[in-house]
Amino acid sequence: MSSQEAVKVVVGLGDRAYDILIGSGLVARAGAEIAARLPGIRAAIITDENVAAAHLAALSESLEKAGIASTAITLPAGEKTKSFAALQQVVDGVLAARLERGDAVIALGGGVIGDLAGFAAGIVRRGMNFIQMPTSLLAQVDSSVGGKTGINSAHGKNLVGVFHQPRLVLADTDVLDTLPRREFRAGYAEVAKYGLIDRPDFFAWLERNWQEIFAGGPARAEAIAQSCRAKADVVARDEFETGDRALLNLGHTFGHALEAATGYDGTRLVHGEGVAIGMALAHRFSARMNLASPDDAARVEAHLRAVGLPWRMPDIPGQLPDAERLLAYIAQDKKVSRGKLTFILTRGIGQSFIAKDVPASEVLAFLRENHPE
Amino acid sequence: MSSQEAVKVVVGLGDRAYDILIGSGLVARAGAEIAARLPGIRAAIITDENVAAAHLAALSESLEKAGIASTAITLPAGEKTKSFAALQQVVDGVLAARLERGDAVIALGGGVIGDLAGFAAGIVRRGMNFIQMPTSLLAQVDSSVGGKTGINSAHGKNLVGVFHQPRLVLADTDVLDTLPRREFRAGYAEVAKYGLIDRPDFFAWLERNWQEIFAGGPARAEAIAQSCRAKADVVARDEFETGDRALLNLGHTFGHALEAATGYDGTRLVHGEGVAIGMALAHRFSARMNLASPDDAARVEAHLRAVGLPWRMPDIPGQLPDAERLLAYIAQDKKVSRGKLTFILTRGIGQSFIAKDVPASEVLAFLRENHPE
Repeated sequence: MSSQEAVKVVVGLGDRAYDILIGSGLVARAGAEIAARLPGIRAAIITDENVAAAHLAALSESLEKAGIASTAITLPAGEKTKSFAALQQVVDGVLAARLERGDAVIALGGGVIGDLAGFAAGIVRRGMNFIQMPTSLLAQVDSSVGGKTGINSAHGKNLVGVFHQPRLVLADTDVLDTLPRREFRAGYAEVAKYGLIDRPDFFAWLERNWQEIFAGGPARAEAIAQSCRAKADVVARDEFETGDRALLNLGHTFGHALEAATGYDGTRLVHGEGVAIGMALAHRFSARMNLASPDDAARVEAHLRAVGLPWRMPDIPGQLPDAERLLAYIAQDKKVSRGKLTFILTRGIGQSFIAKDVPASEVLAFLRENHPE
Repeated sequence: MSSQEAVKVVVGLGDRAYDILIGSGLVARAGAEIAARLPGIRAAIITDENVAAAHLAALSESLEKAGIASTAITLPAGEKTKSFAALQQVVDGVLAARLERGDAVIALGGGVIGDLAGFAAGIVRRGMNFIQMPTSLLAQVDSSVGGKTGINSAHGKNLVGVFHQPRLVLADTDVLDTLPRREFRAGYAEVAKYGLIDRPDFFAWLERNWQEIFAGGPARAEAIAQSCRAKADVVARDEFETGDRALLNLGHTFGHALEAATGYDGTRLVHGEGVAIGMALAHRFSARMNLASPDDAARVEAHLRAVGLPWRMPDIPGQLPDAERLLAYIAQDKKVSRGKLTFILTRGIGQSFIAKDVPASEVLAFLRENHPE
């Protein structure tokens, strides 16, 4: 795909609508794309050490060529960077650079950097311009769309943050070539999620085309664009997560509990892998509740297995806490409303729905049945 | 005024409209007023040591009677509490109490507590219910209306925060009786400000009735209600401070510079006093620029002097930095747009306007003329 053929997805949020550009060579073109939309600005690039080594020089040069002076704030890579301490470091760095409200914070990195930089952009001077340049598949299809930002707390993940929409998202598909295969696969779990939520045809297309997506052919940009469109549709319907947007949490309630249960140890389980197992469990649990056919649960499991993703609890290396403890992790999740359990369940492929008042006893029994021990 | 006669001001912000109740006995009635609007919630009360000693027990009891379980987080009194460290303490405390999105953070205190607690409410779970119970005159007429929240940074005051509207404001006029006289006066500067912005009749009424407002008669609640209405009008026109809302900064550009120049040392200058001097300077500077009559500047100065407020730089005890340094403090202020100086100037009493591109050289000359040395 040449640099002129970026796919554009428009996220329709009234006067805060913005473009997502998806394609090849977008790091090199970033300066021009940004200057065309926000003339005369200065910028702070927030990135991590790994991404900085690979892409920071190219981005800085691209901005400079477009007349955008920039400063870079580089943080350690990893989930621990979604902390109050790192937030304060970014906020102080942006203020030290004397950026004003009309200037921009640019997130160059994966979901951690995007969430952190977006939160900082949302609170410095009560809201600066924010530009996302997601460098992982997960970030390109998930965290770069929707305006959710945040950090973790001792009490759980993503419990502190704001809604702050970007002005522009630049998803360069080339940068994904340097991703570790495991990380690419984990991001793919979220791609599959959009099919499972409400796009059965997209899921069927993924079943046929996943190998090309992994190889980097035109199907990759198409899969990312479809995912962004799917998420943008949900977000436009429910920007502040008061209703339908919860559908995006398909697989996340089980998934977050498993991430917590493994101490957020990325050597055992990364977020996308938790979501993969969580989606499989959500379908299997729906079948157990006689909501969906067991065949659909099996189809989801088969696809996740085919692409090399974990799909059941025994796929997680090491010991897991017992079922009671896993349920406690679920009840701690922020999607619990007034002590009742809310899950995203399904009536079949592409037929997810929000189930409130799911009996904790059924969840516990299900966890026991599916527990490795 | 009996407890049944609270004055109600409605802040019209569409589906986020909320009531400000102003009157006597509202701490004791808080539980009932909150439960009527947000049934079934739990709450965290954020307060400071001074206010806690005077009013926390009464508020907790009132909440309990209305069936609202609450936890209290008490911080040291003073501007230093508007810090990242205190923000993290409040956020962690609210999460430790396992409050959910639909529960409430209640700010019981002055502007510092309101700004801090509002910021925490705005970022815990990306936005919880927020209730303001302002206990200073300044907070009742200023910071409790408008949704601005925030903390200070090494780079300046209020540089970090969010817009987060309260669900309810309860301004108990009785609690002002225990305020130190100096603090009450400082709050009165912001009352006068609303007259000077665009309500010349209100300013004239204040000139006639200020003694009754200080004494605590019915004029006090009326002055507070008028101030809230005035601010609510501006906020409803411009919630996110992209235009007219800047009028509320009348007196604040000079005032913030003087606060910074005195190292935010409250023994020398508190915020409202800085605003008083700043308003007098804004009128005097407007006269110097031939925008307003010197008579109007003299009238503003006379009223501030009459109520016992400082109104000129020599009224600040101790040495001030020189005029060049004061200008540097002004240029650091967040209301500077792209290196140009923006001031709120006036064409006379109640005729303020936003002046962009004010020449720094004129400001410097004016500061030299009015400097005590």
